[in-house]
Amino acid sequence: MNRSNIILIVAYDGTPYLGWQKTSMGPSVEDILQKTIEKILQQPITLQAASRTDAGVHALGQVVNFIWDTPKISLPQLQRSLNGLLPNDISILKIDEAPPSFHPTLDCQGKEYHYYICNSSFQLPQFRLYSWHYFYPLDISLMQEAASVLLGEHDFATFCNQKKNENYSHTTRHLTQLDLISLEGSRMRFEITGNHFLYKMVRNLVGTLAYVGCGKIRVDELLPILISKNRSTAGVTAPAHGLHLAKVLF
Amino acid sequence: MNRSNIILIVAYDGTPYLGWQKTSMGPSVEDILQKTIEKILQQPITLQAASRTDAGVHALGQVVNFIWDTPKISLPQLQRSLNGLLPNDISILKIDEAPPSFHPTLDCQGKEYHYYICNSSFQLPQFRLYSWHYFYPLDISLMQEAASVLLGEHDFATFCNQKKNENYSHTTRHLTQLDLISLEGSRMRFEITGNHFLYKMVRNLVGTLAYVGCGKIRVDELLPILISKNRSTAGVTAPAHGLHLAKVLF
Repeated sequence: MNRSNIILIVAYDGTPYLGWQKTSMGPSVEDILQKTIEKILQQPITLQAASRTDAGVHALGQVVNFIWDTPKISLPQLQRSLNGLLPNDISILKIDEAPPSFHPTLDCQGKEYHYYICNSSFQLPQFRLYSWHYFYPLDISLMQEAASVLLGEHDFATFCNQKKNENYSHTTRHLTQLDLISLEGSRMRFEITGNHFLYKMVRNLVGTLAYVGCGKIRVDELLPILISKNRSTAGVTAPAHGLHLAKVLF
Repeated sequence: MNRSNIILIVAYDGTPYLGWQKTSMGPSVEDILQKTIEKILQQPITLQAASRTDAGVHALGQVVNFIWDTPKISLPQLQRSLNGLLPNDISILKIDEAPPSFHPTLDCQGKEYHYYICNSSFQLPQFRLYSWHYFYPLDISLMQEAASVLLGEHDFATFCNQKKNENYSHTTRHLTQLDLISLEGSRMRFEITGNHFLYKMVRNLVGTLAYVGCGKIRVDELLPILISKNRSTAGVTAPAHGLHLAKVLF
């Protein structure tokens, strides 16, 4: 039998979904994508994704694969059919064949996330679904100073939320990038890259840096907070809708 | 009686609305805003807007006024109440008292529009409601050359769609800005400023420049098209959802 390992680069607006992963509670990107592929291929498939994005989180470059038995149409045809049949909040940006052994979760070497904040009294409605409206004035240079404390390899237990059925063997992670970029219209983008991330770690880092930016946490308090391994010492968990899975690194 | 002329700067996501102006056909920004103000003030009011944006068109800085008899709450209180009660796709960015004679339509000296295009095979879903997905490759330098032909004072009859009950005394308009700006992710923004605009003129200019960018219209054909005063010689009307009323000039 002719089996192909098909890899998809998927972008989605996470607003109406309860995250990537299938759940009986409501719509998920995985469920919609799997059913649409099965409708086109007329065979059952199983999807594996590099990242199980949470409810409301967006993706610019989620990586997903499935095994395709006896392909009958070309990959460009499959991509066109998918983009035609999928709801317009999910888009297949690229489709390709991978080596048989490729696995998007196991082979993942790191991820890049983007997080958007709108820092003004009122947020333009056009951004309301894609960026956190944080109206306390933020000092971006203080936040950049704080970011440099967090960069590198640390035990990030402080920035990990509890999750049912999730037991990490250790909580040491390596942040290779934590940049803050000013954008027009009082907006900013965090660009955060690391090897692996703990549960809600990106949103906890962003929430803590926002607390630094508005003076609720001093920069010199950040290292003790990191060392404390105590989630309650750090800042708030930034809301899901500002977060975008930008890129998966292999 | 103590009468105040109240001026509002309003931003909205035009996606769910049939435009600014009240209509029996469905929801309009004017209708929602008027009812919300009347609920707060407990008195009937009439809104006047600088621009009657079309169905699906967005606003970053629409200017609206109304006459407020015997104000009983402060303007910051009114703004907070409005932003609390309005649906989150409409935002009051600023509220102020204007001189009694100020009229947003009659005193308007010009408008600045922004139009977004995403020029790649697939558009990120995050932009689908706010920019035109144009997948034929566009040559931005050709479009900029074409834009310079359109700049200045001309009879823009070629770029005016027919509208019931709309008879212009003349169709000469003055374009003071027509810039194309490259943005990240294969996106571009048109910044178009003029004294007054004809019906669908901005969207017809953008559609025509897109035709130039992909080679359907040559730059040297543009002046004859402008002079022809014949709508059918120019490009397509770009879709509403890429258009944003950015600023009203007084």
